[in-house]
Amino acid sequence: MSKELENLDKSYVLSTYARNYVNFKKGINATLYDENGKDYIDFTSGIGVVSVGHGNKQVANAICEQVNNITHISNLYVIEPQAKLAQQIAKLSGYDVATFFANSGAEANEGAIKIARKYGETKFKKKKYKVITLEHSFHGRTITTVKATGQQKFHSPNFAPYPDGFSYDTTIDDIYNSIDDETVAVMIELVQGEGGVQPFEKAAIQELAKFLKQNDIFLIVDEVQTGVYRTGEFLACNLYEIEPDIITLAKGLAGGVPIGAVLTKHKDIFEPGDHGSTFGGNYLSTAAGLAVVNILENYKNSGKLDETIIYYEKKLNEVYERNRDIFLDSVGLGLMRGLRVKDEKTLSDIIKKSLEEGVMVLKAGKNTLRLLPVLTISKEEIDEGFKRLENALSKIS
Amino acid sequence: MSKELENLDKSYVLSTYARNYVNFKKGINATLYDENGKDYIDFTSGIGVVSVGHGNKQVANAICEQVNNITHISNLYVIEPQAKLAQQIAKLSGYDVATFFANSGAEANEGAIKIARKYGETKFKKKKYKVITLEHSFHGRTITTVKATGQQKFHSPNFAPYPDGFSYDTTIDDIYNSIDDETVAVMIELVQGEGGVQPFEKAAIQELAKFLKQNDIFLIVDEVQTGVYRTGEFLACNLYEIEPDIITLAKGLAGGVPIGAVLTKHKDIFEPGDHGSTFGGNYLSTAAGLAVVNILENYKNSGKLDETIIYYEKKLNEVYERNRDIFLDSVGLGLMRGLRVKDEKTLSDIIKKSLEEGVMVLKAGKNTLRLLPVLTISKEEIDEGFKRLENALSKIS
Repeated sequence: MSKELENLDKSYVLSTYARNYVNFKKGINATLYDENGKDYIDFTSGIGVVSVGHGNKQVANAICEQVNNITHISNLYVIEPQAKLAQQIAKLSGYDVATFFANSGAEANEGAIKIARKYGETKFKKKKYKVITLEHSFHGRTITTVKATGQQKFHSPNFAPYPDGFSYDTTIDDIYNSIDDETVAVMIELVQGEGGVQPFEKAAIQELAKFLKQNDIFLIVDEVQTGVYRTGEFLACNLYEIEPDIITLAKGLAGGVPIGAVLTKHKDIFEPGDHGSTFGGNYLSTAAGLAVVNILENYKNSGKLDETIIYYEKKLNEVYERNRDIFLDSVGLGLMRGLRVKDEKTLSDIIKKSLEEGVMVLKAGKNTLRLLPVLTISKEEIDEGFKRLENALSKIS
Repeated sequence: MSKELENLDKSYVLSTYARNYVNFKKGINATLYDENGKDYIDFTSGIGVVSVGHGNKQVANAICEQVNNITHISNLYVIEPQAKLAQQIAKLSGYDVATFFANSGAEANEGAIKIARKYGETKFKKKKYKVITLEHSFHGRTITTVKATGQQKFHSPNFAPYPDGFSYDTTIDDIYNSIDDETVAVMIELVQGEGGVQPFEKAAIQELAKFLKQNDIFLIVDEVQTGVYRTGEFLACNLYEIEPDIITLAKGLAGGVPIGAVLTKHKDIFEPGDHGSTFGGNYLSTAAGLAVVNILENYKNSGKLDETIIYYEKKLNEVYERNRDIFLDSVGLGLMRGLRVKDEKTLSDIIKKSLEEGVMVLKAGKNTLRLLPVLTISKEEIDEGFKRLENALSKIS
């Protein structure tokens, strides 16, 4: 059967992913089951998406109820759960922001760039349009967000010409020298997801935020991966105690329903007609989003999220310390963690062996083992997952 | 309550839509109910999205079952309903194509442009990268698809710089003269959704397709609005009997779950790493998509879709003929219809009065009343909808 599915996939789906041919049929919290009933501890959560666990009943019930009533209407009519989710996002962020809803992280970042550029076009005598990002960043797969992505390997000449106005700096400190009178925004992740899971220093980020504010340059924080409690707070921005001009969310916001969100305190920059989305913010995605953020708000307020983070970190550090022959460093924040592996080849071996042992893990950059567990992962699942990871490590030569 | 919701929406959702503040709570097929129990006949289907009706039980059950098992995992692992939906799309289209799944029409068109440009970069001695589109086209809201959109009003300097390589022609005939040795693709809708619902002439499209094929230039057909039986066949391309290099789908494909699809016969152009999506093609969107296309395949094969189209057209023509003082022309294909209104002001009055009378209709371009009913709309709903539309028309001075 898996072979049959593999053939189907290879025949009809365009080859853009390095696929693993395991056919998952069911999930319960951080545990997935394949068609043969074999279980896997999921330390990936669909790359940070399934924040409240697979098959979460509260989210499933909210979705079921919603799709039995209304799944989607046009944004030409008000959508109640959209307004409520936007309100919840403002409340949980602690910022006085309004939200535009899109369908992915890439679309959220497109919205952020459009807001910044409109600001740069309309608020200054001389147009400002340049956006500075960081070399190891990842901002999406549309042509513009590929260009905004600092990793050179993504700027293939295959997809050129790209839009002008993007440049990249290696470090936060370099940004100051790159800014010119056409710079409208600096766009960063606080912990680079694809770039190696290295959190930036709080003081450096706060200083940058202050400098940009003083110079009327937008700070855009891409929280597509870090957002929605991934780092321990609703936003990584809360942890860094900064207040950017624009924040983007996506992955963990709606439990797996495609969604993107652009949060901004500049509520008057867009006018009707400036931007839009057919699906964005529809009943389904925002009803799911409401269920997810309500679950996570309670989970955080009850102290359970912090407890889970502490337990996960403890277990992770034990594995790290016991395997210092393989791991060079342990990085990350909250439930967004990375273990630096001595070389690329060893990293792919670990990922492969881990899957065989029944634990799913990810790669980031060239040599980082990335762990993005379900935020509601249980202690038993954490124990079992790390046990399996160590089994895999023991088979690495 | 509606006032409370209106305030919530205005406070927390970024103002990008010209909203109507009717709070819909429930839908059954082509009928929506607001919070006061007032019913509306929906001739918009969420701009062509809710193809099998609001609250469709088969789709709702498929979604409920799926989200109780798995909503989402990463594309690093095979996703069974994704492979099956891709197979169904190939079967129903009649073309030998493979599919990439995205989350919206804009993302699907981004994928199409990336495929065409990679072809232009890798298959010729001299790079080809230019894409020709039509003046009244609409291809999306990302920076690149805004630029691909031919309607000048969308190319606001606010969002510049845009990527180079896009140009626009007024008519199909003009395209021949615009092609140069750097042209890699021509991208068109067969019936322009936003552009006025005017279908192109079949012979002209067939001639263009033939010419492009002979000259090794891609034909990209944007079927984001026309696809999935909207015009009476699975694809408008089937009706036009052409076989493009790339076709994009979105709106009607998954009953309101955000989805986009890029279909191409050039299965080897993308390699792993060239493109990707976190949410695209996940369990939820493709399980919903499978339910939708299976319903519509049966609906079409049983003759019921054709019957609905004939009945809808008949009723529409009666209204058109009885109101020739207001309408200048009747255009469209299948269940994608337009009535040209004598002026813009009258059109907005009609849309406003229609909503008051309990029938939802859309605008296209400047002076076209656009009708995109649920494909499974009943005769009773059609009768009632047009009755209400005529009530609205009778109040137009």
